[in-house]
Amino acid sequence: MKLSVTQENLTRALGVAGRVVSSRSSLPVLSNVLLSTEGGRLKLAATNLEIGVNCWIGSKVEDEGALTVPARLFSEFVASLPGGNIELETDDLNLIVKTPHYQSRINGISADEFPLIPQLKSQPALSVPSAQFREALLQTTIAASLDESRPVLAGVYLYIENGALLTVATDSYRLAERKLKLKGLKPETKFSVIVPARAMQELARMLADAETDLNVYLADNQIMFEVDNLELTSRLIEGQFPNYRQIIPEKIETAIEIDTAEFSRITKVANLFARENAGGVRLEVKQGGQVSIISTASQLGDNTSTADCLTKGGDGQISLNARYLAEALAVVKSPQVEFGISGKLNPCVIKPLGDKNRDEYLHIIMPLRT
Amino acid sequence: MKLSVTQENLTRALGVAGRVVSSRSSLPVLSNVLLSTEGGRLKLAATNLEIGVNCWIGSKVEDEGALTVPARLFSEFVASLPGGNIELETDDLNLIVKTPHYQSRINGISADEFPLIPQLKSQPALSVPSAQFREALLQTTIAASLDESRPVLAGVYLYIENGALLTVATDSYRLAERKLKLKGLKPETKFSVIVPARAMQELARMLADAETDLNVYLADNQIMFEVDNLELTSRLIEGQFPNYRQIIPEKIETAIEIDTAEFSRITKVANLFARENAGGVRLEVKQGGQVSIISTASQLGDNTSTADCLTKGGDGQISLNARYLAEALAVVKSPQVEFGISGKLNPCVIKPLGDKNRDEYLHIIMPLRT
Repeated sequence: MKLSVTQENLTRALGVAGRVVSSRSSLPVLSNVLLSTEGGRLKLAATNLEIGVNCWIGSKVEDEGALTVPARLFSEFVASLPGGNIELETDDLNLIVKTPHYQSRINGISADEFPLIPQLKSQPALSVPSAQFREALLQTTIAASLDESRPVLAGVYLYIENGALLTVATDSYRLAERKLKLKGLKPETKFSVIVPARAMQELARMLADAETDLNVYLADNQIMFEVDNLELTSRLIEGQFPNYRQIIPEKIETAIEIDTAEFSRITKVANLFARENAGGVRLEVKQGGQVSIISTASQLGDNTSTADCLTKGGDGQISLNARYLAEALAVVKSPQVEFGISGKLNPCVIKPLGDKNRDEYLHIIMPLRT
Repeated sequence: MKLSVTQENLTRALGVAGRVVSSRSSLPVLSNVLLSTEGGRLKLAATNLEIGVNCWIGSKVEDEGALTVPARLFSEFVASLPGGNIELETDDLNLIVKTPHYQSRINGISADEFPLIPQLKSQPALSVPSAQFREALLQTTIAASLDESRPVLAGVYLYIENGALLTVATDSYRLAERKLKLKGLKPETKFSVIVPARAMQELARMLADAETDLNVYLADNQIMFEVDNLELTSRLIEGQFPNYRQIIPEKIETAIEIDTAEFSRITKVANLFARENAGGVRLEVKQGGQVSIISTASQLGDNTSTADCLTKGGDGQISLNARYLAEALAVVKSPQVEFGISGKLNPCVIKPLGDKNRDEYLHIIMPLRT
């Protein structure tokens, strides 16, 4: 292999690929990034066996070839180099890296040992606007479970219904659902998968600089996302996502309309005093325009934080986890939110306020029984 | 105690005091910050028994008093509050904190249990410009030892000689010396102390926003620094600082003049490949204008990084720790530096270039014997 690339392009590509490299794998080649020439471009690939990333950059290829090199050393090295052209050349299992002032030899591992990352090219099953899909992922992945004991709860459920793509996640203590209306969706389009939340978080990061729409491909038990010159492949989670619609309260007894930043602030303050209670606080709505969050006495002390709001319905109260509420408020994009409760034993509902995005996002938090 | 302060002032003061609080002390009161009224102001105090900080803020005092409260909870709580007035009131061993929308009760510990931080008020032994002294500390503390087995090496040596204040530190592998010419220094002024490097790092942080000159007080085995409304008190290190002048090379055989940023860059790149050798690299100067840093072959690979420079004298080479060189170059303030070597067995010398600050700073790195 012999080729030249720009330092800028290589740094950016290594930044993307480097994030999925296994840092503590028992298989040394998984700590490496694969470099290979492909159709006059340089392909970089990295995988942790659950998520795989392919990335292509423009390159002047003199000789075809492939080699894997340690991702961390190579990334740090390239990122430290000055901008401009970098020559890459293999010498058996070494990669020679040359610029006018720098010359390195990096010990690699044969490309043959690198696991194949499947490419699922046929017809895309879906095509979605990258920026909106990224927002949907950021709004839903927070509710996915970190615990793999119930695999479907550690995933994000993506499905199509009534001309919209829905992204849903729940760890059984809270639930987030985002609707994305898609233009030009064929009526016969069927789509229903559960993707590991970790893959979705990685995809959200990749989409931050996306310029094109995101194409989604399906095959066997794999899903592939393609945007710009990047591909992310992940296994799918098998199983049935819980019938979550049944826990969405049909009727709201007490609702408030409140400034999102202010609600977020009183929630965070209450949470400081709720650490010993694992985040448990009591929220009280008083008719006439006040919501209070109360952290009850503990070893540290106690706190009552209050904010003004619009109230609908009677007084109401609920006990919930302040951290869950803070995390939900951090991803609602609207300046005002609606927060609804229906007695102490029913889940509470957080929705953005404003005509445009009122029905776009729904966040549910289960009550704590006290 | 009953008083009111602004959220802005209290947040800033807690930021300073909070840094010296012991987080894992066996004595619970050392995790607390002391609040006490003093002459119509609120005094905050924190100590880890080696370093103590006192800090005063303006306050409307209704009732005098004192109490200690957990520094971390109180700091996070106050920082989360909106700007404006905060009322503080003690109720036995509780601190009641009130703003229009927030009310908290924080469990405290009696002020009687808080260790006394000595105040060494008499005549200041010295008065120095804060910004310059801060720079001097940043330039010298990096060379102090992290190991306390030889206490004087874990300190910064401050002394007066020929109308200048010198700050010096060495861990025996490298040495940094900064000269600060002081105006109006009385000829009879004598000053020679060794202060723990950790106290000096804390002082450097405190000086970042300083508006007044820094006053230095001495008494018994303690030193106190006073700036604006802050005081930092530290114990002194007893013992004799090594006679470091004898290791400064009298003659330089090979010198280069080089762009500081470029030199820093090739050093950092070389260091990436020198991790397995604990930072050991070889530096070679070639007459005619080139310096190379060579990381020899290891499990990772090898690297040669080169930069253009002006050379004086013949060819030369030295083996040294790339991390030490990178750290020295990071604190030299001049855009160009002089780097001098005198054979493989003598220390190398780094100095800023430029008439103004040429003799201000000196950094010496001992060679590695290979």
